[in-house]
Amino acid sequence: MPLIDRDPLLLTPGPLSTSLRTKQAMLHDWGSWDAGFNAVTAEVCRQLVEVVHGDGSHVCVPLQGSGSFAVEAALGTLLPPGGKVLVPNHGAYCARILKILATMGRQAVELALAEDAAMDPAAIDAALAADPAISHVAVVHCETGTGILNPLADIAAVVAARGRRLIVDAMSSFGAVEIDARTTPFDAVVAASGKCLEGVPGMGFAIVRREALEACAGRSHSLALDLHDQWQYLQRTTQWRFTPPTHVVAALDEALRQFQEEGGVAARGARYAANRDRLVQGMATLGLAPLLRPELQSPVIVTFHAPAHPAWDFGAFYRGVRERGFILYPGKLTRIETFRVGCIGALALHDIDAVVDAVARTLRALGLPTHA
Amino acid sequence: MPLIDRDPLLLTPGPLSTSLRTKQAMLHDWGSWDAGFNAVTAEVCRQLVEVVHGDGSHVCVPLQGSGSFAVEAALGTLLPPGGKVLVPNHGAYCARILKILATMGRQAVELALAEDAAMDPAAIDAALAADPAISHVAVVHCETGTGILNPLADIAAVVAARGRRLIVDAMSSFGAVEIDARTTPFDAVVAASGKCLEGVPGMGFAIVRREALEACAGRSHSLALDLHDQWQYLQRTTQWRFTPPTHVVAALDEALRQFQEEGGVAARGARYAANRDRLVQGMATLGLAPLLRPELQSPVIVTFHAPAHPAWDFGAFYRGVRERGFILYPGKLTRIETFRVGCIGALALHDIDAVVDAVARTLRALGLPTHA
Repeated sequence: MPLIDRDPLLLTPGPLSTSLRTKQAMLHDWGSWDAGFNAVTAEVCRQLVEVVHGDGSHVCVPLQGSGSFAVEAALGTLLPPGGKVLVPNHGAYCARILKILATMGRQAVELALAEDAAMDPAAIDAALAADPAISHVAVVHCETGTGILNPLADIAAVVAARGRRLIVDAMSSFGAVEIDARTTPFDAVVAASGKCLEGVPGMGFAIVRREALEACAGRSHSLALDLHDQWQYLQRTTQWRFTPPTHVVAALDEALRQFQEEGGVAARGARYAANRDRLVQGMATLGLAPLLRPELQSPVIVTFHAPAHPAWDFGAFYRGVRERGFILYPGKLTRIETFRVGCIGALALHDIDAVVDAVARTLRALGLPTHA
Repeated sequence: MPLIDRDPLLLTPGPLSTSLRTKQAMLHDWGSWDAGFNAVTAEVCRQLVEVVHGDGSHVCVPLQGSGSFAVEAALGTLLPPGGKVLVPNHGAYCARILKILATMGRQAVELALAEDAAMDPAAIDAALAADPAISHVAVVHCETGTGILNPLADIAAVVAARGRRLIVDAMSSFGAVEIDARTTPFDAVVAASGKCLEGVPGMGFAIVRREALEACAGRSHSLALDLHDQWQYLQRTTQWRFTPPTHVVAALDEALRQFQEEGGVAARGARYAANRDRLVQGMATLGLAPLLRPELQSPVIVTFHAPAHPAWDFGAFYRGVRERGFILYPGKLTRIETFRVGCIGALALHDIDAVVDAVARTLRALGLPTHA
């Protein structure tokens, strides 16, 4: 470990580098029964609904745990007995939804897709036409395993036209990519504190269509993950059912304040897109090419092909870049050797320049080529 | 709200007042894939096993979410198909175990007990003798609803003698009351970060007998709450399966350092017991009597009878004490009017004196008697 006590920057899909203001919001203790904390919860929930323009039609149900806890909770709470879920699968987080459904013993139909292409709404439409028993579709908005951004509005339109319900894992897009509940029909959009909202990890949430949630009493396979029960209790008492992660909630509250100051979804998405473009340009000068065509690429995370060179070793590369102050992410593809670089968090263009520079120095130190 | 920006002290069963050192440990960001953070996880787990002397025989499985998430996870992971659970019930947290089992669709037998007495090992023994189909017993060590400490070692001996398995909710006792895995047979002891270890809330954990856990692949009703899967993944990768609450884990690591510096379970339990004794003595001078006989009373939280006076109003009392800088807790009994005062967290004897003084001033302001 270096003697210099400074955190490396996180170029990862979450946890992220957060602002000092956000972290300093955790230098307090709150009583979970106290009105002061419950006002923070209410304000966080109000803002989260507003991010997707769901005021009036949708409610926010916060949940302790990571984002995947909230994804399982949404599926377990919203699916009726006998429900059947279509899961378009082009990556690791789609596969996780399938695993959740299998563990819960729910009926699922996988729509297997190429992992380097976006979901095709027409393919989803055809799958729904072929199986009238499918009641729900569960999609990942931005597949973090590759960085592909899916055409959510078009998918939602197809699902609604077929009279089916949509559940969206928007873990790595919420707050950076526009989702509009007024024009994009969905029953639930699920995300978490520690992604594009730039809070710290430890809390998920679902933005759920109120009418859909009202019908869900007693459906959940799990008490801890029962979003209907959590919502009812919050409505009745203003408190979380079980001990909330008070410091994480307070950090999210402070992170949302900065999110609004920055200019909301449009401004944050633009900053991340600028980070991504600068990253792709910089890495291109080193001969490192992204996996995806530009039109598929989200502003969240970029998957790069590993150099096709015998000296390539991800572990050594990771450690070299880490020693220079930056944390990257391994690839998550099954057949192609890749690595990933996140564009989200409290990062500016000069940070992206610095990470490209650290990558260049590391490649040179490892005897790898650094030219296009 | 007061203009003075200082946190009230929490006299509650968690979240607690934590030390500044613990909170300052959250002023960093960690990559959840990074070796630095994974070493913190490993060290936290090692120490948690050591607290109950489970080295070699038991493993620690950390879990995102509140303590109740970990209780449900332990039950869902450890109970075999067809398992049947005896639940001695003398309070709110016993009832929660029954609710978890009902939601999961597991067989449960309630042993209804008086809410102002400790669990009687003989009654548990008789219930086990009467029903050979009972495979497991699930008990709460310290019932936080009242503050009763149950005779865990005696209960465990009875359960083991009958060849059944024991799952313990030790949420509010772990770290303050001795639990010794070498002499007290259990399959799982479950607790959380934000209780007597004095971390911040957001992480639960189960200390599980390794041999019992090894048999539990594929048993869980939930992917998120599958302790076997979480354990296997941690073993294989040193990482959490899903995004960990990095800041909460780091705070627990720092809190455990202070726990060791204080002198471990014995010293912490002694400090809390001294807090409790000072509290009970101080409140007695104001005519406020505890619900429990001293031999039943845990060092964690004390339930007091509300004054039998027409001017009593818990809401007004709570607000009055809050304005004087202290947060108390409502009662959780069904038939008797009570309130609760916690003895745990970063609290010293002079804090207890100060809270008794604030209670006295509040009673006077509300026109209530303040003498025995």
